[in-house]
Amino acid sequence: MPVLVQKFGGTSVADAERIRRAAARVVEARERGFGVAVVVSAMGHTTDELISLAESVSPMPDRRELDMVMATGEQVSAGLLAMALCDLGCPATSLTGGQAGIRTDGVPMRGRITRIDTGRLERLLSRNEVPVVAGFQGLSEDGEITTLGRGGSDTTAVALAAALRVAETGGCCEIYTDVDGVYTADPRLVRTACKLPRISYEEMLELATLGAGVMHARAVLFGEKFGVPIHVRHSQKPDAGTMIARESQAMEELAVVGCALKDDLGRVTIRQIRNCIGLQGTLFTALAHANIVVDDIMQTEQGSSTMIAFTVEHADLGDAKQIVARTLTELGDGEMSVEVGLAKVSAVGVGMKVHAGVASRMFRALGEAGIPIHNITTSEIKISCIIEKVHGPTALEVVHRAFGLGLGSNATIAMQTDEAQG
Amino acid sequence: MPVLVQKFGGTSVADAERIRRAAARVVEARERGFGVAVVVSAMGHTTDELISLAESVSPMPDRRELDMVMATGEQVSAGLLAMALCDLGCPATSLTGGQAGIRTDGVPMRGRITRIDTGRLERLLSRNEVPVVAGFQGLSEDGEITTLGRGGSDTTAVALAAALRVAETGGCCEIYTDVDGVYTADPRLVRTACKLPRISYEEMLELATLGAGVMHARAVLFGEKFGVPIHVRHSQKPDAGTMIARESQAMEELAVVGCALKDDLGRVTIRQIRNCIGLQGTLFTALAHANIVVDDIMQTEQGSSTMIAFTVEHADLGDAKQIVARTLTELGDGEMSVEVGLAKVSAVGVGMKVHAGVASRMFRALGEAGIPIHNITTSEIKISCIIEKVHGPTALEVVHRAFGLGLGSNATIAMQTDEAQG
Repeated sequence: MPVLVQKFGGTSVADAERIRRAAARVVEARERGFGVAVVVSAMGHTTDELISLAESVSPMPDRRELDMVMATGEQVSAGLLAMALCDLGCPATSLTGGQAGIRTDGVPMRGRITRIDTGRLERLLSRNEVPVVAGFQGLSEDGEITTLGRGGSDTTAVALAAALRVAETGGCCEIYTDVDGVYTADPRLVRTACKLPRISYEEMLELATLGAGVMHARAVLFGEKFGVPIHVRHSQKPDAGTMIARESQAMEELAVVGCALKDDLGRVTIRQIRNCIGLQGTLFTALAHANIVVDDIMQTEQGSSTMIAFTVEHADLGDAKQIVARTLTELGDGEMSVEVGLAKVSAVGVGMKVHAGVASRMFRALGEAGIPIHNITTSEIKISCIIEKVHGPTALEVVHRAFGLGLGSNATIAMQTDEAQG
Repeated sequence: MPVLVQKFGGTSVADAERIRRAAARVVEARERGFGVAVVVSAMGHTTDELISLAESVSPMPDRRELDMVMATGEQVSAGLLAMALCDLGCPATSLTGGQAGIRTDGVPMRGRITRIDTGRLERLLSRNEVPVVAGFQGLSEDGEITTLGRGGSDTTAVALAAALRVAETGGCCEIYTDVDGVYTADPRLVRTACKLPRISYEEMLELATLGAGVMHARAVLFGEKFGVPIHVRHSQKPDAGTMIARESQAMEELAVVGCALKDDLGRVTIRQIRNCIGLQGTLFTALAHANIVVDDIMQTEQGSSTMIAFTVEHADLGDAKQIVARTLTELGDGEMSVEVGLAKVSAVGVGMKVHAGVASRMFRALGEAGIPIHNITTSEIKISCIIEKVHGPTALEVVHRAFGLGLGSNATIAMQTDEAQG
């Protein structure tokens, strides 16, 4: 029997009505002949509310104890969804992460899944029952409740799908969310953007990191590692969404599959600093300790001195500035400057590996639109340009058009079966 | 080291401020040289809210799933109280019922504790840390989360105190609640009522069953069985409350220690029925299946026919009537009548066993006050009279006075060290 893992996010189980609709989705899949295991997030804003509650008791809540409190959100959703399934005549059993056999490394609030004992899940599935697993959590080897940090429920779903070998059964992991798939660009910014029927893990990873919400990079990485096909779908619509799967020959035919815009970045530039051994380590360790997520790092050399620039989310810029200033004072070297109001436009596609001239096409398009490029970073399958924030939406649109993405261009041939959303 | 089990009820952990105050209580006890294990209920009305949420999803929620949902309430309180303790520099670890080693028989929503593996609790206590246990729950041998039904958190506390042998260490089980102890009568009804410094398990059991809230009978039974002294105290006041302990010689000196009024009862009377074998079983099994708690049962014989009467809470009267009517129709025998607007006044005391004339004193007092008695039931240590509801408060007051309970009477000698509350 083909097995599906269906994951319902917070908005998909936000109230009683939606929980019943999620249950109907599960029953539907079973009627199409699938065995189904379900993973749920906490209802709506429950996790944020639990964190606020904890902070009202303790300004800096103990991390282990915060895990005890937070893990209850998903347990409640799981119980409720199982009730709704029972009411539809579908035998269902909710399970905490621990009961579902999910073992973690025990690091509070950002635990990693170390293994999954699928015994109980497989017993339930073989009896044609539906296990409903509380996402975002597991038990450490010591029996401690650990939550998995951001993107934890997506990761739970993909990890369960891997452990249950759903791909071998002909199933996949379905992620039900409040968008209907992955688009060639953010449809709120680019009216001609259209939904991609298929995307590779690598492309999705780049897009996830570049500001295209939809799915957390961590879950995609898990999917890639274990070859789990991930179907991202809208929880309130019947249409197919986007399948995230291994790169195929067909995918390489398109140089670029999607574009993304990351808004409101700041940049710290360090000039006139000697490139002594360990400089970069010192600098970025200090930033990491302050929990600042660095976006892109660029380094160039000018004679004996070096220039290092990096971008961060605008909200982190103040902290980043202070830390760099302190580090430079300790080193007794370098000059710092800070710019605000930047953005990053990126083009992503596995086809870049085999298509030449992708970068130049992007630069030319931005140039023709009169948009200056401040920095460039590239990977094997993506090109990013730092531009001024004010040019962001236009830049996204011209790059999207330059690669023939979206409605009305040739590239749409591949997606004609999907309804486009403006 | 003497060990205390401190249990904080729902109102004692209803908000952040109260949770911090509960934490301060724990720290205080440690400073007085006690090792402390804590048991908590869910915050305020959380359990009711979770049940409503479940009922909004499913009209008759699956019982196992309802347990999954309800058990989260105590887990949240436990995490929050542990955080507050950490903030006061007191090392604390919250534990679910399962993590605390509490094993149940696995019956959903009314599980019974079968055993407690105290290993982890003892390890924490021996390292001078405070385990904070989520009350009202445990794990079945199959690893299922089971809640313990009404009075479950009190039961958890007393059971832990028994398992940790706190009596042998010189400690006890402290129940923090929103009343400051057990009174000779409900102080809202009898102005001269005063707090009892000490009461036996048996007396407390009778009082608990007779309508004196304070503690659930089930927890008291557990305390009696394992000889755990239970100290009922107000969570927001420093005064000593009431110690529930084994009956002592001194206790027998008073014939009656307390009076109680159970308000708003209804009575079903069955007349003219043949006392065939199994009649009572048939009748009360039918009522039990409908979850109707029968208060008192009285049976008398008149020639070849029998009269059976029983009282129930007014809210259950409609259902009880229907069930009895149906049963009589099936039996083809008996006549039923129903009365409403009844109440029950009771006097309780282990001293009754050795003092004569207790019943007659009570009947005389009611008679002198012009209150007719409709039924009488007795146990070894209690006498109850069914009267009209309208006479309830007066009846309680005259019985209370007749036994010399309360302020201004000789019986207060035994309680002079305690502050009386009117």
